[in-house]
Formats: sequence, C-alpha cells, structure tokens
Amino acid sequence: MSITQLVRPSLDGLIQCIKPLGVLDSIASVLGWDEETWMPPNGIHRRSEQSAVLAQITHERWVSDEFRRVLSPHVDLNTGVVNPDYTPIESRLVAETYRQWRKKTAIPTAFAARWATLTSEAQHCWQTARNQNDYAQFAPHLDKIVTAVREKVQYLGYSDHPYDALLDCFEPGMTTQRLTTIFDPLKQGIRQKLAQCSGGNRPYISGVFDTNKQWDLGVMILKKMGFDFNRGRQDQSAHPFTTTFGLNDVRITTRFSDTDILEGLSSTIHEGGHALYEQGLDPQWADTPLGSACSLGIHESQSRLWEVMVGRHAAFWQGIHPHMQSLFPNNVGSRDHSTLYRYVNHVSPGPIRVSADEVSYNMHILIRFELEKQMVQGSIDAMALRDLWNEYYYNELGVRVCDDRTGILQDVHWSAGLIGYFPTYALGNLYSVMLFNAAKQAIPNLETKIMALDFLPLTRWLNQTIHRYGNVYASETLIQMATGESLSASPFLNYLSDKYPIIDSPG
Amino acid sequence: MSITQLVRPSLDGLIQCIKPLGVLDSIASVLGWDEETWMPPNGIHRRSEQSAVLAQITHERWVSDEFRRVLSPHVDLNTGVVNPDYTPIESRLVAETYRQWRKKTAIPTAFAARWATLTSEAQHCWQTARNQNDYAQFAPHLDKIVTAVREKVQYLGYSDHPYDALLDCFEPGMTTQRLTTIFDPLKQGIRQKLAQCSGGNRPYISGVFDTNKQWDLGVMILKKMGFDFNRGRQDQSAHPFTTTFGLNDVRITTRFSDTDILEGLSSTIHEGGHALYEQGLDPQWADTPLGSACSLGIHESQSRLWEVMVGRHAAFWQGIHPHMQSLFPNNVGSRDHSTLYRYVNHVSPGPIRVSADEVSYNMHILIRFELEKQMVQGSIDAMALRDLWNEYYYNELGVRVCDDRTGILQDVHWSAGLIGYFPTYALGNLYSVMLFNAAKQAIPNLETKIMALDFLPLTRWLNQTIHRYGNVYASETLIQMATGESLSASPFLNYLSDKYPIIDSPG
Repeated sequence: MSITQLVRPSLDGLIQCIKPLGVLDSIASVLGWDEETWMPPNGIHRRSEQSAVLAQITHERWVSDEFRRVLSPHVDLNTGVVNPDYTPIESRLVAETYRQWRKKTAIPTAFAARWATLTSEAQHCWQTARNQNDYAQFAPHLDKIVTAVREKVQYLGYSDHPYDALLDCFEPGMTTQRLTTIFDPLKQGIRQKLAQCSGGNRPYISGVFDTNKQWDLGVMILKKMGFDFNRGRQDQSAHPFTTTFGLNDVRITTRFSDTDILEGLSSTIHEGGHALYEQGLDPQWADTPLGSACSLGIHESQSRLWEVMVGRHAAFWQGIHPHMQSLFPNNVGSRDHSTLYRYVNHVSPGPIRVSADEVSYNMHILIRFELEKQMVQGSIDAMALRDLWNEYYYNELGVRVCDDRTGILQDVHWSAGLIGYFPTYALGNLYSVMLFNAAKQAIPNLETKIMALDFLPLTRWLNQTIHRYGNVYASETLIQMATGESLSASPFLNYLSDKYPIIDSPG
Repeated sequence: MSITQLVRPSLDGLIQCIKPLGVLDSIASVLGWDEETWMPPNGIHRRSEQSAVLAQITHERWVSDEFRRVLSPHVDLNTGVVNPDYTPIESRLVAETYRQWRKKTAIPTAFAARWATLTSEAQHCWQTARNQNDYAQFAPHLDKIVTAVREKVQYLGYSDHPYDALLDCFEPGMTTQRLTTIFDPLKQGIRQKLAQCSGGNRPYISGVFDTNKQWDLGVMILKKMGFDFNRGRQDQSAHPFTTTFGLNDVRITTRFSDTDILEGLSSTIHEGGHALYEQGLDPQWADTPLGSACSLGIHESQSRLWEVMVGRHAAFWQGIHPHMQSLFPNNVGSRDHSTLYRYVNHVSPGPIRVSADEVSYNMHILIRFELEKQMVQGSIDAMALRDLWNEYYYNELGVRVCDDRTGILQDVHWSAGLIGYFPTYALGNLYSVMLFNAAKQAIPNLETKIMALDFLPLTRWLNQTIHRYGNVYASETLIQMATGESLSASPFLNYLSDKYPIIDSPG
C-alpha cells in the first residue's frame, strides 16, 4: 500500500463530485479570514449573508440526489459498508466520504436551521454576558444548546456513549471509553505533578515590547520553521487562527501584547505549527476527504509541538536569547537565557485555560470533559454547571474562580455548540510529546539543532511522518506509524517528570 | 412614481430567486479583492479554481429551468416585452432582469468556455508581450479575440451596428450611431483646443514624497469626501480599483509613486468617487438589477467628477496647499498654490491614456473607438491595427509612438476581451462636467466650499441626484433628471474653453 497509489478510474465520478465541495469550503475560509482581519465594522451583516448563501449551496450539493447517486455504487448507504473491491486507500476515501455525507444527511434541515439560529444567538449573548460578567443571562441559552446537542446526538447516532457521537465530529474514531482510559491516569499524574510544582517565584520580564520588533521576530522564526510566505501569509486578529484556502495559500494570524512578549511569540509559533501541517499536505488528495487533517487532535499536536516542545525548550531559549537581547535590550538586558527559560516555564495554576502552563493545561480540559459528559447525559442544568465548574477548579487546580468572565464564560466553544471539541486539545498535547520523542530518535542532535534555530530537520521529519498523510490514516494509526507507540498519557507524564520542577540550566 | 414605492408581491418569487445571485457576485468580489491586495504569490492557481467554481454555480442558476420558470410570468422570454400591469419601476426591474438573463442565456456554454480560455491565454500573453515590448507575439491572440467577439455579437444580437451589442454590455442603451453624433463634435473640439494649448513649460514639483504621508493625505481627503470607513476600507494594489461586497463594505485601493505626488492623490480621489456611488446606493434595491450602477459611464462620471472637476480645480489646490506645504515642506516649500495648479493641469499630449491631461484624454478614447468599430466589422487584422493606432496617435495627438509598450500594448482591455468598454471613459468625462455644472447651480458657493475642503455638500447632492437611484433609471434619463440637459459634448468643450489655456490664478 503506497501513498502514491492512484485512485482507480471507477472513483472518478465521486471525486469529480466532491472536489468542488472542497473548493466551496475554501471560499468560505476566505470569507472567514477577511471577517477576522480586514473587514470594516459594518460589513458583518453582509458577510453573514454571503456565508449563509455559500453554506446553503454547499449543503444542497452534499444532500442532493446527484451526490447520493454518485456515492451509492461504492458503499452501502444504510450501513456504511464499503464495496470490498478497493485498495485500502481507495476504501478509506470512500469510507471517509461516506462518513462526511452521513453527518450532513443525518441532520434534518429544520434542525440545522434551528441549530444555526440557536448558536448564533447564544454566541451573541455569550459576548455580552462575558463583557458584563453575568452568567445568568447566558445560562438559558446554554440550556437550549445542551438540549439541542442531545437531539443532534440522536440524529448522528452512537453505539455506546452519546458523547461518542460528538467526539467523532472532531476526533474521528475516538470514544468516551477510550478517552477515559487515557485521561484517568493523566489526571492522576497531573495532580501529583502540581503538588510538586507549587510555589516558587517567576522571574518577570517587564517593560514595553515594540510590536514591529515582535512582528519581525515572529516572521524570522516562521521562516526558520519553514513556513513558506510564497504559499501563505500572516496577519493580525483578535483571536489567532490558521485557515487554509488551498495548499498554496495557508494563512495564519497572531496578536501581540506590548507588555507580554510571550503572547505574540507563542501564538505565532502555535499557528505556524498548524500552518506547516496545511502547507505539507499531499496535493494528490486535495479537496477530497483524505486531503485534510485526520483529526483536530493531530492538528493540535502540530501547533503544540512547535509552541511547547520546541518553543518552551531550554535549547530554544538559549538559541533565541541573543536575538531577544538585541531586539529588546531594555527588557531582556542582562537577563541570561535560563532566566528567560524559567520565565516561560513557570508553573502556576490559574483560572484561564489559554494562558495555562503545560502542567496544569490538561487539567482545564479534563474538567471540561467531565462537565460535557454530564451535559450530554442530560444530568445537569446550566446553573448547576457553573457550581460544578467552580468546584472542580478549586479541587483540581486550587483555583478560586472569582467571576464568570474568568470562569465558565471564558471559552467561546459551548456558545458555538462545540461540545466534544475540548478533548482534542489534551490529545494534541499527548501526541505532541510522543512525536517529539520520536523526532529526537530520528533526528541526530535535534536539541543542538534547536539551539541553533535550525528547525528545518524537524519540519521535514513532520512532513514525512505526519503532514503528507493528511487523512489517509486515522489519527491513532498515524501516531502508531510515526512513533511506534500507542496513544497513552505515559509519554506526556514522563516528559513532565523530566522537566518539572524546572532545573535552572538548559537541557 | 416614487423610488420608495414597494415592489408588488407578485414579483417576490423573482426577487427571491435573483438576490442570491447578487450575493454570489459579491463573494466573487471578495475573491477578486484579496487576489489584488493580500494574496500570496503562489495562491493564484487556487484562486482561479475558486473563482471558476463560483462562476459556474452562478451561471448554472442564471440559465436554470427554475429561473426561466420564475421569470416567464413577467416578461415574454422571446421578445423581452414586459407584462404591462406593472408600475414603471417594477417594469424596469423586470426588463433589467430580463436583459441580464438574456445575455447569460444567449451565449452557448461551449462558446463561454472557449471565450474564458481565449481571454485567459491572451491576458497571459499580453503581460509577457508588454514586458518584452513585442506586439507580434500578442497579435495572433488579438486576432482570435476579435474573431470570437464577432461571434459573440451574433449571439447577443443587435438591430443596427454590430458594435451596439458590445456597447450595451457596458453602457446599456447606448448605440454606435448615437455615440458618433456625440463623439464627432467632441473630436473637432479637442483638435482645436489642443492646437491652442501646445507648448509651455510645466512647473515641476520634484523630490521624494513619503508614502505614509501620502496615505494620510489620501485618507484625510476621503473622509472629507464622506467615504465611510466603517462601511469600507482602502488598501494598496498594483492597479487601483473599487469593489463592492455590499452597501456596507465598499473597498478601494490606491498606489503611490514616491516621486510623483499626483499618482496616489489622483487614484485615491478617483476611486473615492466610485466608492461614494456604491456607498450611496439605495438598500431597498440591493442584489436586484436595480441595485447597482446604471452604466459604466455614469460610474466613471463619479470618479472623474471627483478626480478632475474637484481634484484639478483651482479652488481645490488653494485649499489643499497648506496641507501639502506642511506634509511635504521639501517638495512644495515656497511654491504657491497657483504653481501647484499649473503643475496639475499642464496640457501635453503623450502616448499613455491613463496619464493624459484632461484635454487630450478623450482623444485616446476616440482613437480606440474608431479601431474597435473596425475590429467588430472585421475589416482589419491585428498587425494592421497597430499601424493604424500609431497613425492615429500621430495625426490626432502629434505623438510618435516609439514602442508597443507605450503604444497598442498599454491597455489590458482588449486582451481581456473588453471591446466596447473604452467609450464609457469618455462618456464619464462628459457626464462629469454636466453634473458639476448642475452642482454649481444647486449648491451655493460650491467653489468656496471646495476651497475650504468642505466636500460634503457635493457628496450629498450626488447622493440625491445620482447614487440613490442605482439602476432605477437608464443613464441618459438619469443625467437629464440631474442636470436638465441631454447628453452632448458641448458642456465638456465649453468647460475646456473656460479653463484652457490655464490662466495663472485660481478660478
């Protein structure tokens, strides 16, 4: 079985039918990118109209008789059993096409419309509620979303746990049961590690960091990572993201704080990691269900590998130190690289997920996982959810949540109906450690190379082991192929043990 | 008959069917805008795919049985005779919908595909040929385009002159015969005026103009013109343009020369004029055939009114002079405003249309009009066309064309198949003078206001007389309503007589 094996002519009709759908999705990405980067304030209503027309056209094509007619010779439309005559890759192409088609057609049109209205209203309310620090006005929306999610789960179907139906939207093949076997030891390990890491002072790198210099630093690192500016670009936005118009047009955004150098640097490297994945996909699968990431967990593994495994590595800070001194003499000045390293890797649990250190980060996810399971089982209402949120934060992280803004209202996901999404962040972290370990085995003196800011060997290894496969393999298969190991929490916990408490010298 | 009169319910089906087509067009505009502003170099192939898929979907909807079914109760699909029961505005809505539908359906799909390939290849070759200053390699493409245009004309149909079919694509209702009655006296008048204006030295405003300061100057003027930056934005591009995503998202681009202050200033004001039209359209007609400009000539009248009638007016230069002195002390320094005025309005025929003074500009158009008529009649091939081009330039403008780059290869239009487009530039100039004359009648002390850079009264008058009507009236009707006069060359020629030769004091 080879990645270069050509799809048989018999699948041509299906591929011809599905490729324009990929192109339509990429047009939606253009609209979304512009909305977050350059769109004038009053352009939002028109943008919603444009996105709605495009979404409707795309949906109509997915659920059309024509698509059903073209798909049906290849797979049993009721059971999903693929015609056995295909090669493994062809078979996966058909199966993944079916999986996507099944999700589109399983949701009744009336429900989809209701869902769109519901989440649009909820997101609008969430923004207000967060600004006003008033969870009570958002709670009824969340209750409605949870009710709708439980209905959605019935349409999508599941064999064991209803939460499985949601997981499958973001991390195909993942189940609640499997997650639990991974997350339970993870939780135990984090608890132990947090107990060891508590306390200690963080060296503070203060002052004002010129935004133009931060931009230049980010661009330098992106180039060294191998981000191809002929095939992509970087802009600024309120919330950093990566979006793909096509293999040769991958765009990232970043944001800067002029008092915190880490914000811009981390987000640039993080999105750069996502972008390398997108720029590294194999063109032969473009616009087919095999031509994009196999899961959000794998995607996040790429961003977190660069942001954390590389970007918080002692060797990285040793290598970047002279650049920092030269760009920001007033802030960095006489601080040595190990001080910067300790600054970046200080462990101190707080209420906010996105600014969490790497020891406590996954605990934020595990808490959300517990809450989401209860939502989907229908055993909790929105007001009780907040009590439980605050209780978990205190019990697991020792954090007293002072207000809803920095508590249950901090993330956009639930207001957007994205329940089942959070676990992919933790999986990304676990995968990223496994991949970095394998990269160290495969690339001689990787850490010395990182110290020299010579990142391309790592990028090439990721291209070969992850990027080019897109969705040709399922995520756990891919990780097994790339690392020789099965997904578990052990590599991550061993990594934490080796790294924390911080030893005050580069690794 | 009132602009606020509501369309009868009976047209609802048609409007529901046509509005998404307007939205789809506006998505194509987003793709086009990004292509010219921010797209990375290698993104072009993907962008072509996106545009092609979108164009195909839009075309399929126009020529669908569904559209025919929805349109047919309102108009005879063979003759274009509109059901007589409608109000005049309703009737025009149906007629204009029919006119657009007729153009889409008249062209056979196979021809449209051939045309797309032909013009794409020709544009590609034109760029190379222009760079290499080698017309011979482009000539065969132009011959093919001319042959195809003559075929297209047969599909579109015409009653008198085949060129009428092309004119109707850009300046609906305009005919070759009518143009000739307007352009003949225009040509005579320009010849006389050029004879008077020849000679004289141009004061030269030299030095380097900081691009950021040029940008700020442009933004200041745009704001004073009433361009709403909440409902639009400005960027830079190689060729300035205006594009509309919706009434609340109108985007313009500009370009700068750091040695020629006029390039950026003129293009900003020019595109600003286009943009005010788009921002001033009546929302009630949005995404219907009445909701956009009634012709390219009228659109150009808006840009040229601002660029030339205002932007080259003595009062404007008197008003802008202190700003210029303050922004560019090294360049402008002790020069007085009348020196700037003479610099801006110096008459000196050259080979290049886009940098022509306002006396000779229209002659560039009249030459192209003569050549295009001969193309469409099939009486000339591409190599002979160049000889004729050079001959006209010498006879009419006294310009010896030294090379093809600054001669017949200077414009993109013919390579893009845009034959019949050039006359709208001259019409825009004629309309702009008529409108400015009417504005002076309607707005007390307009020139004093211009001197104070108080442009909003003019913008409001244009909103009321032109912008809000969109395509509710045909262009010549609209001009008659706005100015009380019929289209002719006289106002333009009188304007030239009053202004040239330049009198060395503000008007």
